[in-house]
Amino acid sequence: MDYEKKLQSLGLSLPQAPKPVASYLPLVRSGDLLFLSGMLPFVEGTLVSSGKIGEALTFEQGVEAARIAVLNGLAVIKAEMASLDEIKKIVRIAVYVASASEFTQQPLVANGASDLLVEIFGDDVGRHARLALGAVSLPLDAPVELEMIVAGRS
Amino acid sequence: MDYEKKLQSLGLSLPQAPKPVASYLPLVRSGDLLFLSGMLPFVEGTLVSSGKIGEALTFEQGVEAARIAVLNGLAVIKAEMASLDEIKKIVRIAVYVASASEFTQQPLVANGASDLLVEIFGDDVGRHARLALGAVSLPLDAPVELEMIVAGRS
Amino acid sequence: MDYEKKLQSLGLSLPQAPKPVASYLPLVRSGDLLFLSGMLPFVEGTLVSSGKIGEALTFEQGVEAARIAVLNGLAVIKAEMASLDEIKKIVRIAVYVASASEFTQQPLVANGASDLLVEIFGDDVGRHARLALGAVSLPLDAPVELEMIVAGRS
Repeated sequence: MDYEKKLQSLGLSLPQAPKPVASYLPLVRSGDLLFLSGMLPFVEGTLVSSGKIGEALTFEQGVEAARIAVLNGLAVIKAEMASLDEIKKIVRIAVYVASASEFTQQPLVANGASDLLVEIFGDDVGRHARLALGAVSLPLDAPVELEMIVAGRS
Repeated sequence: MDYEKKLQSLGLSLPQAPKPVASYLPLVRSGDLLFLSGMLPFVEGTLVSSGKIGEALTFEQGVEAARIAVLNGLAVIKAEMASLDEIKKIVRIAVYVASASEFTQQPLVANGASDLLVEIFGDDVGRHARLALGAVSLPLDAPVELEMIVAGRS
Repeated sequence: MDYEKKLQSLGLSLPQAPKPVASYLPLVRSGDLLFLSGMLPFVEGTLVSSGKIGEALTFEQGVEAARIAVLNGLAVIKAEMASLDEIKKIVRIAVYVASASEFTQQPLVANGASDLLVEIFGDDVGRHARLALGAVSLPLDAPVELEMIVAGRS
């Protein structure tokens, strides 16, 4: 169990943890559960893409955005918990997809997040309950916003 | 307390538990809480209806879809927990309604889920906190998606 | 720690707790966590404004609606827990903003809720994880709907 090594073996690395720009926190722990704020697909402070899936963007761009949002979420967990190895279980993720009215393939976009989590954490820890739905618009015109609830080691 | 008998007395039965088609789980337990994935209104593998409420579909069709999504959620709980009697409390449901821009009766649609839960589980166990809102589009063009958090017996 | 005095010192007071009009509850407690139903910006039984932000309404009207939804949520907590001093931590809020398709400043609207929570409860208790996103429409044409998860004192 060394999830950061696993990340590296996948050719990935954690970004700087995004800092909220208002009076909220990136993560709040309550008992065993870590509640993360909505993560956007930032790469070095800039959204990797913007606009709606099925309109300005393809679903493949949504998949990429979902993967990047996961990395931002993991960076937040590492910043708060010192190590990704504090993660006991990915409990629930919600993938909100900025969607053209007729776009209904939110699950394909959400797979970008789900598949990456399982690649990193394996089936037992990485598989999660999931919500995927279409938002008419997202903060800063992001294509994807990701929420996570994670169980931490006590 | 025999919730499946209660279901039968209402003329209802549980469907096959829907299987996720990607790398997530229908249900994750963390401590006492069961987090269910977003449930769609499938009947034998097919959505009971598709399209947006207030556009292709009436709110009555939304009510029916919400009821069916509940049955799918309960089927998931039974598949994982062996019996519906493991349910101690319906804690929180979210009813996401694929909505025409001017449709604002999401609570009426959500009542389809809320009323059925109270019919089956009674006031003490069945009443829940609730979110209802309009999604610009939902997976597979479903009219309703249902999320549930349930407290299980320890 | 006397959060109601703090409210008063801010020139604010709690409204009557809104009553659900269907078979759900304003709040469900499970263990330490209080799950609140979606709160709308009611003032004495009437929405303070209606319509979408970026269309019928400005973001400043959204900020005001978010503040009022917080007061309704706190009224629910007081009605159930007898005192706001039972609040140990604001864990997670979700601010759903009825949004014109091109409106992407949901975080500014959500700041109305976040800032008020921190004013009342201070940084340690009041800061929270946050989700903000655009809904195509909300119940009763409300501009904002607020969900809260709060940790209570045991």
